[in-house]
Parts: sequence; structure tokens; C-alpha cells
Amino acid sequence: MATRYRDVMIDLSGVLYQGHEAITGAQAALQQLREAGFGVGFLTNTTRRPIGAVVAQLDALGFKISSDEVLTAAQAARHHLETAHVGAHLLVHPNLLPELENLRGQQPQAVLVGDAGEHFTYQSLNVAFRVLMEASEPRLIGLGDNRYFADTSGLSLDMGPFIKALAYAAAIEPTIIGKPSRSFFEAALHRLDATPETTVMIGDDLASDVGGAQHAGMTGVLVRTGKYRSSDEHHPDIRPDHIADDFPAAVRWLLNSR
Amino acid sequence: MATRYRDVMIDLSGVLYQGHEAITGAQAALQQLREAGFGVGFLTNTTRRPIGAVVAQLDALGFKISSDEVLTAAQAARHHLETAHVGAHLLVHPNLLPELENLRGQQPQAVLVGDAGEHFTYQSLNVAFRVLMEASEPRLIGLGDNRYFADTSGLSLDMGPFIKALAYAAAIEPTIIGKPSRSFFEAALHRLDATPETTVMIGDDLASDVGGAQHAGMTGVLVRTGKYRSSDEHHPDIRPDHIADDFPAAVRWLLNSR
Repeated sequence: MATRYRDVMIDLSGVLYQGHEAITGAQAALQQLREAGFGVGFLTNTTRRPIGAVVAQLDALGFKISSDEVLTAAQAARHHLETAHVGAHLLVHPNLLPELENLRGQQPQAVLVGDAGEHFTYQSLNVAFRVLMEASEPRLIGLGDNRYFADTSGLSLDMGPFIKALAYAAAIEPTIIGKPSRSFFEAALHRLDATPETTVMIGDDLASDVGGAQHAGMTGVLVRTGKYRSSDEHHPDIRPDHIADDFPAAVRWLLNSR
Repeated sequence: MATRYRDVMIDLSGVLYQGHEAITGAQAALQQLREAGFGVGFLTNTTRRPIGAVVAQLDALGFKISSDEVLTAAQAARHHLETAHVGAHLLVHPNLLPELENLRGQQPQAVLVGDAGEHFTYQSLNVAFRVLMEASEPRLIGLGDNRYFADTSGLSLDMGPFIKALAYAAAIEPTIIGKPSRSFFEAALHRLDATPETTVMIGDDLASDVGGAQHAGMTGVLVRTGKYRSSDEHHPDIRPDHIADDFPAAVRWLLNSR
């Protein structure tokens, strides 16, 4: 392989861990990447917990990661809404509220949707819908458009379906802030001081991770863990540059490509 | 007006009644229609109650309607699934279960979605999603694709948004059984022994009632009650043949057109 990769972006849930357990060998593989001199960043749309809690959990599982290395969709959304000076109604997981509370506004013109999980109720969706219908210039903003994720009980609905629901009900186009939006990958490249041509994204979400990275000019590697399904290997539009059994296998492929 | 209309199809909720009250003058207007010799039928996607309960409520409000005159999306769905010999998982309002119970199957290949209201929960949507992901030939069937409806507490989400959510999550195209599907209007025309050119549909839902009827070759009349919003009069694609303030006004227009 001619490309000399220099930087690696890594999705968290489903790649380094799944449910409450680390992917076997992932800690050592991450360490190898760092020792081989790769720049490393972490990109996540996961929005059920503040990033500090995610990093603490990873630390407990044996991963050495600094909060500074993690770019979350919530951080990008805060930047987006503050720049636009628009008050928001928040339909996000309660654990994420402390991080976003100051975005709330009287007569909100925007609805911000994260992975609210069981807090997606008929009632909470109705409230968000009515905000959109009453706003003079409604904006529907999604932290991501992920379809589903894998947890201990199986596949579960992520935020994407609920954003589609509200978009259809209120007849407006949503803006997606996190993966797969190009601006999110570009912000991550900027933070790593990296160029797309020499950067690899490793993820378990074909559309958000692999498709999004490729759309931003990066190399997209799919792992067969987390929400991966065999049908991902026959998608009509998105073809990973490489498919690895798991994160350690993806790292071996990267190290061999040097 | 050159057209001589002979048959009228009428949506129920938002046209004859709203919340728990009749639209003023609607009972007398319906009676006038009948006395003028119009064939009359009722088309509803409303799926929170069995049709007997709907007719009983209308009777209590002073409307004389026979169950035979009402075509419901649930009836059409039962016919559709029985013909296809496919067992279904039911994500519908509990009140509708007695009417549909026998459609349930082991290892269901279809998910049937109605207006489940507050029974749309993260959990119930996840169960339906997993059925779709585990089926070898998944089918997502909606009783309608209505975006929202007006009730006593304001605008509320109808089944359409939740069908969009599941369709996106499972990456499949839904089949819509009730309005605005052409086959539903055709079944109604067949039952009335009517031709589209001489039939008028009166409804408060621009897309489901007016757009659907027009697509089936009928005349579509929008009333400014129920879920009507002023923006409906400036829709880029759907233009009602006539807009009336309410059902009695629509009937006056019809009687004058003779």
C-alpha cells in the first residue's frame, strides 16, 4: 500500500468497548498505535453521558485516553447553537443536560435531538414537535443520524430514527452536527492537525463512521464488532476501504500498511 | 361548474368532530347531503378505537352513520395481511387489538403500525425494530402516513412519523394501507359503486385526504378545521380543488355545484 497513514480517528462504542466490556485486546492495540507514532483522536456521537464519564469508564476498562482527545457531537452542537444565537429545546438524555443546559431558550426556535433512549416518549416527542410547529423559523438539529446501536440487550434505536420522525412531522430538513457530517470530520482533522489523505477512521457504523469519513476524504475502516451486520459488506453505496474483524485487527492492518 | 358530483367521501376526525365535540352544524349538513341524493361514505385512518366505538360516539353527537358506510385502514390491513399469509407484530393502540389479534404470528415477518399514541414508547419501538431486523423478508406496514392530528391538547404526532422512524432504522420502504394510498381510495370507490370523476373527498389532512383523493382521480376538498393550518393553502405540490371553512360550508359548495 502506497499511502503512509499518520493519524487515526476512532469511534468509541462498539469499537473499543461493547456494553460494559472492552473488546478483547483493544487496550494493547491502542497502545501499539500510539507507540508507532500515530496521531490519535476519538470521535463519538454517543450522547447518553457527558464525555468525562465516558473517559472514566474507558479508564476503568484499561484504556488510557485524555478528554482532550475526544470530540463529541455535543461539543460541536454547543458551538453551532452559540454561534447562531438560537435558543434550543433539548430532547437529549438527562445525563447530558449539564453540558447543554445553557443552550436552552425562551420560545426556542431550535430542537436539539440526541440519543435520549427511553426518554424518547410520545409525550417528549410531542413537546418537541410543538416547539417546531410554533417556531417562526424552526430548526431541527441532530447530534447524529445513527440508526441504531448494539448494547447488552441487542440492537436498539439510536437518535436518527427519532430525528426522521420529527422532520417528517414538522416537514423540515434536519441539520446533523456529529458524524457523518463533513464539518464534524473537518473539525476533528483540524484538532489533530491532520490531512484527510493520511487519516484513517475506524468505526462500527457503516454510514456514520465509514461513509462520513470517506465523504470527508479520509480512509474508512469498518470493524466487525458493535452494531456491525454482515449486510454492511454488501451496501449499495458505501464500501469500506478495509474491513477488519475487530479493533486489534484494524490496528495490525494499519501497522502493516507502513 | 360542469361536473355533476354524485358521491362524497368524508374523513371523520377533524371534519365531523374535533376532540369530543361535533363541528357546529355538521349533523344537519350530513343530513342535507343524504337528502340531496349523494352517495356517502366515510374513510378513516383513525386507529385508536374499533370502528363500532367511533360510530357510537358519532351517534351520541347526533350523526346518523352506519358501520357499513365506514371504511377503515384496519379493515384494509387485515385484508392485505390475510391475503399475503404473513404473520404480523402489532404496534397499534390496545383498543384496536381485538380487531387485529388474529393477524399475529410466530416469528412475524411484518410489523403493522397504527396510531398507537402514548403506546409509542422507546421500548415498543425497539421491539418492532428488532422484529424487522430479524425477519428474513421484513415488511413494514402502516395503517396511514398521517403526520399529526389535532386533539383537545393541541397538535399531536400521528403514526406517520413513527413509521418513518422504523423505516429509516431498518432501512426498508414502508407500505401504507390507508389514506393516501391509491388502493384504499379505489376500494372505497368500489364499495360506493362510484367513479372518481364524480366523487368528492372532504378532509382536514392536506396530504392524506386531499392529495390522496386527487391522486386517485377524485376531487379533493380541504376544510379549515381539525389539523388544518394556514400553510396548507400554500403547499408546493398539493392544491385542493376547493377550500371550505368547515364541513357545512363544504356541503353548501357541493349543493351549489349541482
